[in-house]
Amino acid sequence: MPDSQIVTLTTDFGEGSRYVAAMKGVLLSLNPRLTIVDISHAVPPQDIRAADRVLVETTPWFPDGTLHVAVVDPGVGSEREILYAEVGEQRYICPDNGLLTSLAARQTPRKMIFLREEAYRLKNVRNTFHGRDIMAPAAAHLSLAVPAERLGQMASQLKLLELPRTSRVGQSIEGEIVEVDSFGNLITNISAEQLANVPSEDVTVCCDDHQTTGIFKTYAEQPPMTLVAVIGSGDHLEIAIVDDSAKIMLGVAVGTPVTVQW
Amino acid sequence: MPDSQIVTLTTDFGEGSRYVAAMKGVLLSLNPRLTIVDISHAVPPQDIRAADRVLVETTPWFPDGTLHVAVVDPGVGSEREILYAEVGEQRYICPDNGLLTSLAARQTPRKMIFLREEAYRLKNVRNTFHGRDIMAPAAAHLSLAVPAERLGQMASQLKLLELPRTSRVGQSIEGEIVEVDSFGNLITNISAEQLANVPSEDVTVCCDDHQTTGIFKTYAEQPPMTLVAVIGSGDHLEIAIVDDSAKIMLGVAVGTPVTVQW
Amino acid sequence: MPDSQIVTLTTDFGEGSRYVAAMKGVLLSLNPRLTIVDISHAVPPQDIRAADRVLVETTPWFPDGTLHVAVVDPGVGSEREILYAEVGEQRYICPDNGLLTSLAARQTPRKMIFLREEAYRLKNVRNTFHGRDIMAPAAAHLSLAVPAERLGQMASQLKLLELPRTSRVGQSIEGEIVEVDSFGNLITNISAEQLANVPSEDVTVCCDDHQTTGIFKTYAEQPPMTLVAVIGSGDHLEIAIVDDSAKIMLGVAVGTPVTVQW
Repeated sequence: MPDSQIVTLTTDFGEGSRYVAAMKGVLLSLNPRLTIVDISHAVPPQDIRAADRVLVETTPWFPDGTLHVAVVDPGVGSEREILYAEVGEQRYICPDNGLLTSLAARQTPRKMIFLREEAYRLKNVRNTFHGRDIMAPAAAHLSLAVPAERLGQMASQLKLLELPRTSRVGQSIEGEIVEVDSFGNLITNISAEQLANVPSEDVTVCCDDHQTTGIFKTYAEQPPMTLVAVIGSGDHLEIAIVDDSAKIMLGVAVGTPVTVQW
Repeated sequence: MPDSQIVTLTTDFGEGSRYVAAMKGVLLSLNPRLTIVDISHAVPPQDIRAADRVLVETTPWFPDGTLHVAVVDPGVGSEREILYAEVGEQRYICPDNGLLTSLAARQTPRKMIFLREEAYRLKNVRNTFHGRDIMAPAAAHLSLAVPAERLGQMASQLKLLELPRTSRVGQSIEGEIVEVDSFGNLITNISAEQLANVPSEDVTVCCDDHQTTGIFKTYAEQPPMTLVAVIGSGDHLEIAIVDDSAKIMLGVAVGTPVTVQW
Repeated sequence: MPDSQIVTLTTDFGEGSRYVAAMKGVLLSLNPRLTIVDISHAVPPQDIRAADRVLVETTPWFPDGTLHVAVVDPGVGSEREILYAEVGEQRYICPDNGLLTSLAARQTPRKMIFLREEAYRLKNVRNTFHGRDIMAPAAAHLSLAVPAERLGQMASQLKLLELPRTSRVGQSIEGEIVEVDSFGNLITNISAEQLANVPSEDVTVCCDDHQTTGIFKTYAEQPPMTLVAVIGSGDHLEIAIVDDSAKIMLGVAVGTPVTVQW
C-alpha cells in the first residue's frame, strides 16, 4: 500500500457545516501538507446506505493509498468500533456500521483494525464527535507514515449491511432503484454485465407503472422529455428523462422495483 | 501561456455530488500535486447560459495558465466535440456547446483544439460522463506539460450562443437581468462603461413595474429594505434591496427587461 | 505568531457562489502555493451572529498562524473599517462589525490593525465586494510574510456585539439556544463548566414547553426519537432528538430560552 498525502471526507454533516471545518483544522494541525478532498457532505442525515454508495462509486478513482474518512455515525459515542480497513488500493477510516458494505462486496477488505489507541486521538475525546476527535487524528497520523497496526487491534470482520439483490427469471431481470442522482436520474442495481447478452433494442424496462423500450448508450440519443434507459457511468442500468428529472416526473424513489424484460 | 498546477471545476452536478468527487479522483490519480479549486457545482442543470456567466465572472481572476474544466453537457455522448481553448491568459476544457460565449465576446480565443486523441482519455470511456472520462484526464495531462496539440485536432471556430443585447435610444438604455446572485441581487447586462457619461443622480432605473432613482456606489448608502441601483462588482448595473432579496421582493427573474432613463 | 500557508474562508455568499471563486482566484494569483480551506459559505445572508459562532467553534482547531478571512459584510463600501487581529494563535481578517465577538470573549485580541493601505489592495477597488478587492489580497500578502503593520494603522479596539447571557438563580440556570446545527440539534450557551457540579441524572432541562430529564454523554444512550440533553462537541449543553431533528420536532429557533433545574 503506497503512502499518499491525500485525505478525503464523506459525511452527512451538510455542505457548509462547521463540523467539517473542525475536522479539516485537526487534520491540518497534525499534517499541514495534506491535500484534503471533500467527496460529499450531502449524504442524508444518518443514511449509511447512501454513504455506502457514495464510497463505492467515488473512492476507487483516487490514487492508490488515499485515506478516505467517512463519518455517518448514528451510534457515535456508543459501543460501536471505529474501523481502519484496506479495500483494493484504498484505505478507509469510518465507524464500523456497514459503510464499507458495497466495497467489501467487490473485494475482500484487508488489514482491518479497530482504532482504540488513545495516543492517536485528541486528548479530550467528546462522545458526540468522533469524526473530529478520533477519525481525523487517525487519518493524519497514518498520512505521517505511522503504521496502522499501532493505532489499535486487528479485527477479524467488519459489519456488513444486506444489499438489495437482483433476480433473473427466464427472460427478465428484476432489480430496484438504489440511488437518485442530482439530475434526478434513477440508478438501479442491475449491472451492465448482467445485461451483456440482452438484445438492447428489443428490451422493455419497467419502473413502477412507467415503461420504455430499448437501452441506449447516452441520453442525447433521444429527444428532450423522453423516458430512456441507459447504461450509466457506474456501469449500471439507469432510468432518465432526457434534459429533465426522472425522479420528479415519475415520482419514484430509492427502493422502487425495476424490471427488464426481453 | 505559463504552466500552472491549478485546475478549476465548474459543473451542474450539484454541491456534494459524487460525480465531482470522481473527477477529482481521476485528476489526482494522474497528477497528485494538483491544486483543485471548485468554482461552482450549483449551476442549474443543463443551464449553459448560467455557466457561461460563472466562467466569465470568475476565471479571469485566476493565475495565468490555470486550467478551467467546465462540465455542463446536455449533449454528452453525442456528436458534439470537446474543446480546449485559450482565452486571455486562461485555459479552458469544456464541451463545445457555447460555454465560452461571454469570454469569447471579450477576447478572441486562441489555439482551439478538439480533444479527440484516445491516448489521453481513460481507457474505458462511458458515453454518459465525459467530464470524468475525457475532460479530467485531458486537464491532468496538460498540467503535466503535454502540449495541447497532441490531444486532438486544431479547430477553426467554437460554438457561440446569442447573448442578450442592450440598446440605446436617445436618453435611455434598455437591457435585461442576466443573473440573480445568492443574495437575490439582480445583475443586468448594462455596463458601467455604458453609464459612464450618464448623470448618476438624476437617472431612473425601471425593472418590470418597479422604479428607483439614482445609481449608488454601494448598498449601504441607503437604508435597509430600500430598492437601489448600484454598479456591481462585475462592473455592471445591479438592482438590489438593501439587506434583503430583490429577487423575492420584486418577483422577477433572468430575462426581465431593465431600462435606464435620464 | 508562526507563518502559515493556510487561508480559510467563511462567508454568507452561499455554497457554490461565484463570489467565493473570485476570492480564491485573487488569493492564488498572489500566492499560488496557498492551501485554501472553505470553513462555510452557508452563513445566512448578513447574519453576523451566526458567522461569529462558526468562527469561534472552528478556527481554534487550525494550525497556529492560519489566516481566517470572514466576509459577512452588510456595510460593504461604507465607513466601517476592515480589521486584522490576532486572537490566541490564529489570525483574522474581516469587516470590523462584531464578527470576532465570541473569540474576543475567550481571549483578548492582539495586534489589531485597520487595513487601509491601498498598496495591498487590488488596483481597482469596487465598493460592493471588499472580500475580493481588499480582504483576499491582504490575506495573500500576509501569507507572503508582509508584516501586518504595513497594511494599515493600529487600532485600539474592535467592535463587539452583545452576546446572549446565562443566569444562575438558586438551583437553576437559564440560557438560550444560540445555534441550530445541520442535524437540527439545538446548541445552547450553557457551558459544560457551568454544569460541572450539577447532578446530571436528576436534572430537568426545559426548552419552550418541552422537557427532558438527565444530561447524557451522547445521543445513542437513548432510543431513536427520544428528546435528550447532552454535552455537545463544543462543550455546551445541547438538546437533540435521537436520530431526528429537534429543530423540526420542537419547532424552536435561535433565541428560545432553555432552563436547567435540579
